[in-house]
Amino acid sequence: MATLQDIGVSAGINILGAFIFFIIFAILRLQPFNDRVYFSKWYLKGLRSSPSRGGAFAQRFVNLDFRSYIKFLNWMPEALKMPEPELINHAGLDSVVYLRIYWLGLKIFAPIAILAWAVLVPVNWTNNTLELAKQIRNVTSSDIDKLSISNIPEYSMRFWTHIVMAYAFTIWTCYVLMKEYETIANMRLQFVASEARRPDQFTVLVRNIPPDADESVSELVEHFFLVNHPDHYLTHQVVCNANKLADLVKKKKKLQNWLDYYQLKYARNNSQRIMVKLGFLGLWGQKVDAIEHYIAEIDKTSKEIGKEREEVVNDPKAIMPAAFVSFKTRWAAAVCAQTQQTRNPTQWLTEWAPEPRDVFWSNLAIPYVSLTVRRLLMHVAFFFLTFFFIVPIAFVQSLATIEGIVKVAPFLKVIVEGKFMKSVIQGFLPGIALKLFLAFLPSILMIMSKFEGFTSISSLERRSAFRYYIFNLVNVFLASVITGAAFEQLNSFLNQSPNQIPKTIGVAIPMKATFFITYIMVDGWAGVAGEILMLKPLIMFHLKNAFLVKTEKDREEAMDPGSIGFNTGEPRIQLYFLLGLVYAPVTPMLLPFILVFFALAYIVYRHQIINVYNQEYESAAAFWPDVHGRVIAALVISQLLLMGLLGTKHAALAAPFLIALPVITIGFHRFCKGRYEPAFIRYPLQEAMMKDTLESAREPNLNLKGYLQNAYIHPVFKGDDDDDDMDDKLGKFEDEAIIVPTKRQSRRNTPAPSRISGESSPSLPFSGKQV
Amino acid sequence: MATLQDIGVSAGINILGAFIFFIIFAILRLQPFNDRVYFSKWYLKGLRSSPSRGGAFAQRFVNLDFRSYIKFLNWMPEALKMPEPELINHAGLDSVVYLRIYWLGLKIFAPIAILAWAVLVPVNWTNNTLELAKQIRNVTSSDIDKLSISNIPEYSMRFWTHIVMAYAFTIWTCYVLMKEYETIANMRLQFVASEARRPDQFTVLVRNIPPDADESVSELVEHFFLVNHPDHYLTHQVVCNANKLADLVKKKKKLQNWLDYYQLKYARNNSQRIMVKLGFLGLWGQKVDAIEHYIAEIDKTSKEIGKEREEVVNDPKAIMPAAFVSFKTRWAAAVCAQTQQTRNPTQWLTEWAPEPRDVFWSNLAIPYVSLTVRRLLMHVAFFFLTFFFIVPIAFVQSLATIEGIVKVAPFLKVIVEGKFMKSVIQGFLPGIALKLFLAFLPSILMIMSKFEGFTSISSLERRSAFRYYIFNLVNVFLASVITGAAFEQLNSFLNQSPNQIPKTIGVAIPMKATFFITYIMVDGWAGVAGEILMLKPLIMFHLKNAFLVKTEKDREEAMDPGSIGFNTGEPRIQLYFLLGLVYAPVTPMLLPFILVFFALAYIVYRHQIINVYNQEYESAAAFWPDVHGRVIAALVISQLLLMGLLGTKHAALAAPFLIALPVITIGFHRFCKGRYEPAFIRYPLQEAMMKDTLESAREPNLNLKGYLQNAYIHPVFKGDDDDDDMDDKLGKFEDEAIIVPTKRQSRRNTPAPSRISGESSPSLPFSGKQV
Repeated sequence: MATLQDIGVSAGINILGAFIFFIIFAILRLQPFNDRVYFSKWYLKGLRSSPSRGGAFAQRFVNLDFRSYIKFLNWMPEALKMPEPELINHAGLDSVVYLRIYWLGLKIFAPIAILAWAVLVPVNWTNNTLELAKQIRNVTSSDIDKLSISNIPEYSMRFWTHIVMAYAFTIWTCYVLMKEYETIANMRLQFVASEARRPDQFTVLVRNIPPDADESVSELVEHFFLVNHPDHYLTHQVVCNANKLADLVKKKKKLQNWLDYYQLKYARNNSQRIMVKLGFLGLWGQKVDAIEHYIAEIDKTSKEIGKEREEVVNDPKAIMPAAFVSFKTRWAAAVCAQTQQTRNPTQWLTEWAPEPRDVFWSNLAIPYVSLTVRRLLMHVAFFFLTFFFIVPIAFVQSLATIEGIVKVAPFLKVIVEGKFMKSVIQGFLPGIALKLFLAFLPSILMIMSKFEGFTSISSLERRSAFRYYIFNLVNVFLASVITGAAFEQLNSFLNQSPNQIPKTIGVAIPMKATFFITYIMVDGWAGVAGEILMLKPLIMFHLKNAFLVKTEKDREEAMDPGSIGFNTGEPRIQLYFLLGLVYAPVTPMLLPFILVFFALAYIVYRHQIINVYNQEYESAAAFWPDVHGRVIAALVISQLLLMGLLGTKHAALAAPFLIALPVITIGFHRFCKGRYEPAFIRYPLQEAMMKDTLESAREPNLNLKGYLQNAYIHPVFKGDDDDDDMDDKLGKFEDEAIIVPTKRQSRRNTPAPSRISGESSPSLPFSGKQV
Repeated sequence: MATLQDIGVSAGINILGAFIFFIIFAILRLQPFNDRVYFSKWYLKGLRSSPSRGGAFAQRFVNLDFRSYIKFLNWMPEALKMPEPELINHAGLDSVVYLRIYWLGLKIFAPIAILAWAVLVPVNWTNNTLELAKQIRNVTSSDIDKLSISNIPEYSMRFWTHIVMAYAFTIWTCYVLMKEYETIANMRLQFVASEARRPDQFTVLVRNIPPDADESVSELVEHFFLVNHPDHYLTHQVVCNANKLADLVKKKKKLQNWLDYYQLKYARNNSQRIMVKLGFLGLWGQKVDAIEHYIAEIDKTSKEIGKEREEVVNDPKAIMPAAFVSFKTRWAAAVCAQTQQTRNPTQWLTEWAPEPRDVFWSNLAIPYVSLTVRRLLMHVAFFFLTFFFIVPIAFVQSLATIEGIVKVAPFLKVIVEGKFMKSVIQGFLPGIALKLFLAFLPSILMIMSKFEGFTSISSLERRSAFRYYIFNLVNVFLASVITGAAFEQLNSFLNQSPNQIPKTIGVAIPMKATFFITYIMVDGWAGVAGEILMLKPLIMFHLKNAFLVKTEKDREEAMDPGSIGFNTGEPRIQLYFLLGLVYAPVTPMLLPFILVFFALAYIVYRHQIINVYNQEYESAAAFWPDVHGRVIAALVISQLLLMGLLGTKHAALAAPFLIALPVITIGFHRFCKGRYEPAFIRYPLQEAMMKDTLESAREPNLNLKGYLQNAYIHPVFKGDDDDDDMDDKLGKFEDEAIIVPTKRQSRRNTPAPSRISGESSPSLPFSGKQV
């Protein structure tokens, strides 16, 4: 058991670590050659360009202005400066609301921490149960346990304090949650109301159009909506199955990259022609001239693309039974999206069209029955993934021993039998399988969501986030509290009475406080501090810069600003909500650590959102009901565990008083669901009508049809044949579609690096070596 | 343990009992003076009137045509004759679909019974486990057990048969359910499509209209819909709080009844004025002349009604924040009902207007927050009602002993101390509290649903049915299987592992087969046979006829045809589905009894629906998703119990093979929900548009506004001041609103009782004595 001092030392180390991260960051970000990594958002918005040519050569890469190093923590207040409305303009509502999750954590836990320390800590501290236990039964305990509920003797009347506190915490959390839900629902409605005209306001995605013998899909759609929405139908765009075409375009882009690489190499080393082998990974096969080979390949692919493109456009089989239907008014689109069209509820399914950049094209053609089956399959698969993922990993681990390796690859025997290698393999390899799995887990979950058939990237991410949360709950929280693999827990829970489960977990809760405090510091504090360094994008950028970049456009591509990553980020935050709520009435000691995490993360992510992350889509905070629901779930879990814990403590009459809490909480959730959730799913007709009326008054001669004509065309069809940059096209398309007026013309929160002139030449290899 | 012979004898007795009921029924229904009881539906439809005056005096009351007694079971084929489309016209879609529940039972269980008897019975029979057990451990067992799964030894490979059969039963049940869901969804859509014009097709119920300082509710509604549905809004009717007025009208009606009674008495016995006491139950208080007193009272109440009526109409506070808004087209009404109107989803709530006669007026003004709280409260209350109802009853029972009575009322001592009375009280009284509670349970559940705030009678009944089903499941099924009160079960379940619960119940299942067979015979067979006698309405009718009836209209009122009673009937059927599905793989012996129940009930209820029951509302089979869901629930329960049972039998590997069943079943349910349920909740725009187009072509000059103007006026405002008959008004109102064209002009399925002339005179006392 750790003493307070141990925790203090650990905290000190972790704070120091975070501090070092910040110093490294402060130094790195001031170097002009890192500019595109640490200010990529501004480049993406076109508000900042590479430092102009001129000035001292060294100054192009290294910031020699020592004054700028002095205020190395300046970015923190700078990050907090940008007001919320401006931040919405700058980075979208999604980002702002995402930040509010951290803010919500602060709002919930700051008063709870104060109250808990003012009331619960003295109540817990002024007992001597643990000391007695030490004397009598030789049970060791730490100072932290003295601050926790463990220090209160059984049958004590002092448990009433904890019950009252549990009520206070619940009421406060619910109050803050409700206020926040209200605020965010208003923000969303206001955002939607104040937005400029966007294609998705007028457009509805129609899926599962039934096949018709006489009419093409396009004609069918037109006739159907002309008949059933006669005064409102405007135009439509059918969806083509361009998945193969998209693959070809991708392939061509890859080949182009290789060609660039070899041309660059050839340019540097003019004397020698570069030969490559065609076989697997270039290890064997026929030797050919690299540049010629790739030029020929690109040519071939270009032709294939042309052919495929023609086929997609002309072949009726390539037309998918889905279409984007646009209406004359927002009112009509709202009506169509919210109603059922035909008797058969599996045909002519209408829903709001996602933003053009949010559409997940390849899922648009899945029929209804298939969707149900896919969903069921994925539920089952996820169940096994959550509870039995450890089985194949244990199998891999059993193989990844010295004996296993020698058996599979006898020629490695000499190497692995060495003493040093042996210890490395034995200590390191077994862990690697698990680490790899956990690293790939978000991608696995994302693939599962894609298979399930969601039609927008935002909904894919929301589903993945939900699954990641469940996985964390089972495999991080529960597995840490009651040690043992998930399927062992499952087994023991199946064989325990429902009454007993909260008790089993509840009893273990106070004992694990130290562990979770360490976890918060290592995973939370250090993780957040590490996030700001952007290590992976930094390395990748400089590698690309060194080997591939030829032009300014290439350099833009070399940036990898990343995004918020809702599907992994939000479930991680939820774990802290869960820990905070569970430990608040039990071990208030943990709360300050949670608070530091939330504060730190708030500042860091605010900085990242302002300066780095790219906004991939705008869902107008559609994820908030999920966030709210999960905090409620954490609250209920905490109440059940407290009930279990007090049950084992023989706290007189505690259970009957606590049982009302989850009931009230769930009732509160139902209320919030009915009261606020519709704002996130539906689009009120009044709002639509207001916007329509305003618009028709302002722009009576608007050519809406022209505006909507090409809004929902598959990205591969946008642009000419030779364009090899899909992402860029998408990017341009965004700019066309969503005109976010940014008031801010220059960025003021970095010490004017744009004054430092100079452009890193693509042919200079050392720009890469500096990484 | 009962042997096969015992069961046979019991079955014989029950069949005989049912037969006797049928004979009594056959005799009673042929008597003209019972005509209004056994053919009330035809009277309500106006297709049959009281036997005309003339002919022999006796023939007016007694059917002396002996030929008609010979074919006394004739009504059975007659009941089956009427084809379904005609039955829909005659009694509405609700009744027809209700009958299909019984039909569904036959369709599910007939093949299952054949399969089970062909496969499972031989497999079970050809073992000797029970005989061995008898010899070794002196365990007694019956022949029924020899036919059941109990007869198979542990670890036997024969359990594979049961597993395969469980799959077969599940697949068959799901297949039938799906087909049925499809059929009924189509019937509903066709019914809605082929219906004549009805006010509710054009009307939307708007609730929670926000208060406005400047405008009255009526103005507010008009402005809101003129702005937000400019091309479609037609008219609206605000809802008044006429609950007090309705009470007064009811009171007046009651007084009028008494007056009628005394006037009748006075007319018969002209010499003497009738005096009544005004105190409690007429036992004490001032003596007054009865007729004068009631005339004065009625006069007073009439004045009060007039005053109240004026107040309701003029007082703005009596206007509730709810309105029925009508549109020009069905399309617009469908749009408004299915969309959200404003930013605040708790205001301007729109939903389909129920039919005028289905509206539950007093619930229209409940605000949103109150609804959430009420719902939560009722959930909690129902939980306690289900699990702890036995506590107060046990308390009452403890009072209802001889000692208790003597204590409360010492003067009764002489009576109750008598030997005979003593045994009666001790044997009878304790049971009475429980019986009374169970008799009032449907009413209690109905009151709970009303408190919850549903706005239509059909939804009230659906909610009550759900609660009644749960109550039956816990307190009839579970309580019979594992003997013990519900709260004891709850306690033991909370303390058992989730794994263990199906085992505990599963093991008890085969042992309770005999009990449930008896239950099916007594509650099912005899209950259904008793239903056809209509004993209570018969007695009530003749009592009223004897004492109150003066005119033809009074006689009409004296009829109490009753209705299907979805809220009690459907949960009872569901119990048989549950029993059938649970016992199909365990004790196939039970299945024929279930089949007989379903067949008998189908015939009897078809007869009753054709000839007796009044249709109170038409919800177009809106209850089917509930029915479907409960059969699925029964299926899942049966699968879990089979898993539990096989688990205790050590059936090798059985559990893993069975665990897929509930997963598949739930997946199937999800599929059906998505595929068919929308037909029961939403109204497709295509259908609406088709009807609108047709109508505008057929009747271009229709005055829709005039048609809808007064459709949704509170029943107390319909008709003039002196009308003392609300029900009648409601009835008339129905006829106005819903014109159900009936092709059938005369009823052919009774042996021409209309030929027998004669009218029962109201002043003849012996028409009452004949009962």
